[in-house]
Amino acid sequence: MKNKAIILFSGGLDSTTTLYYAIKKGYKCFCLIFDYNQKHRKEILSARKIAEINKCEYKIIKFDLPWTKNFCSLIDKKLNIKQNGKINKNKIPNTYVPARNTIFLSFAISWADVIGADNIFIGANAVDFSGYPDCRPQYFKYIQKVAQTGTKNCLKNRLKIITPLINLKKSEIIKLGIKLGVPFEYTWSCYAGKEKPCNKCDSCILRKKAFEEVGIKDPLLSVSDMSSK
Amino acid sequence: MKNKAIILFSGGLDSTTTLYYAIKKGYKCFCLIFDYNQKHRKEILSARKIAEINKCEYKIIKFDLPWTKNFCSLIDKKLNIKQNGKINKNKIPNTYVPARNTIFLSFAISWADVIGADNIFIGANAVDFSGYPDCRPQYFKYIQKVAQTGTKNCLKNRLKIITPLINLKKSEIIKLGIKLGVPFEYTWSCYAGKEKPCNKCDSCILRKKAFEEVGIKDPLLSVSDMSSK
Repeated sequence: MKNKAIILFSGGLDSTTTLYYAIKKGYKCFCLIFDYNQKHRKEILSARKIAEINKCEYKIIKFDLPWTKNFCSLIDKKLNIKQNGKINKNKIPNTYVPARNTIFLSFAISWADVIGADNIFIGANAVDFSGYPDCRPQYFKYIQKVAQTGTKNCLKNRLKIITPLINLKKSEIIKLGIKLGVPFEYTWSCYAGKEKPCNKCDSCILRKKAFEEVGIKDPLLSVSDMSSK
Repeated sequence: MKNKAIILFSGGLDSTTTLYYAIKKGYKCFCLIFDYNQKHRKEILSARKIAEINKCEYKIIKFDLPWTKNFCSLIDKKLNIKQNGKINKNKIPNTYVPARNTIFLSFAISWADVIGADNIFIGANAVDFSGYPDCRPQYFKYIQKVAQTGTKNCLKNRLKIITPLINLKKSEIIKLGIKLGVPFEYTWSCYAGKEKPCNKCDSCILRKKAFEEVGIKDPLLSVSDMSSK
């Protein structure tokens, strides 16, 4: 029987590569998708589609973070997404969703505890990490300890939080994804939540730059071009 | 200006005593209430009422845990709440909500990060803890580390998870509550979710035994008696 793994799954480039990585490693994958009223709701559709293609069981968890009004530009429709252009590790951008990875992982720990999954995969990375504190290796060390001490399952075995992309640059993630057969045309990265990628937000810029480094055209852009014709 | 504190608040005996403790200590308290489709939804009304009495800002966060079907008797209406009668620390009862404290605390960490609160209070206790793994001191040590490494605020200061009741017996909590002026008649502990406490579930039994030890009648039962006349 295959070992079970929960995948924190947004339908973006990173989490999709993570899913394909876990599948390749032989895990039976369960995708956990979140609807927290993010502007870029299109990512939820991407996530569902990719989970379905891979015949993975998935759950969509819905909640609000009422305190993010006037705080987080990914949620508050009145706030503009701040475009840093390049990543400044000393300044946290206004796209920061407070404690997002902690909230996401806490639900993953809960699901893992019920189905007896020993592995939770998250596609965070500390290189191009946009300055988010909950993407740092030190943080993941402690949330794994939480999983190992605060669950029913932990009494029997050891739950692991696995971050396969943590030390990869975006372009390296794309190269890994190509090797794993990731359908990049279905992944969604843009923060702006429009029909096509805005090409201006941090997430778009990071993605564009990385595909250029790899030397291939982003398949998503080809699809967008075609659909606009 | 008063220091801010988030209180994980269920409207039960423990979290209400915790709220009154934090108020007494001089904190400006923000109550965080959860609606996770628990059978005992009456506790949400208790929580709101007590928060309003104390003029505390409160938020109610709503989410589902779809994987608890056939697993957790506090949520699945088809499962009977197992009555252990007495607490067995080696056996986790079917009232265990997987990773509940981790989920609750992750939302609290998020709110704290936005309003700049340095303190999160939770009324967990390790003595009469019903065998829940996420009520053990070791667990709280690590979730505090998560709060301190995974937030925007943590870069400036240190978020603390405070568990004032962790080493108290239920009867000692009641004694503390009496000293703090806790309105026990408004608190709700019963798991069964009926109009009056069932007097049979673990939570009722623990509460009843503790009030007997203290040597006073539970004010909630007097109110229930009166309302049933």
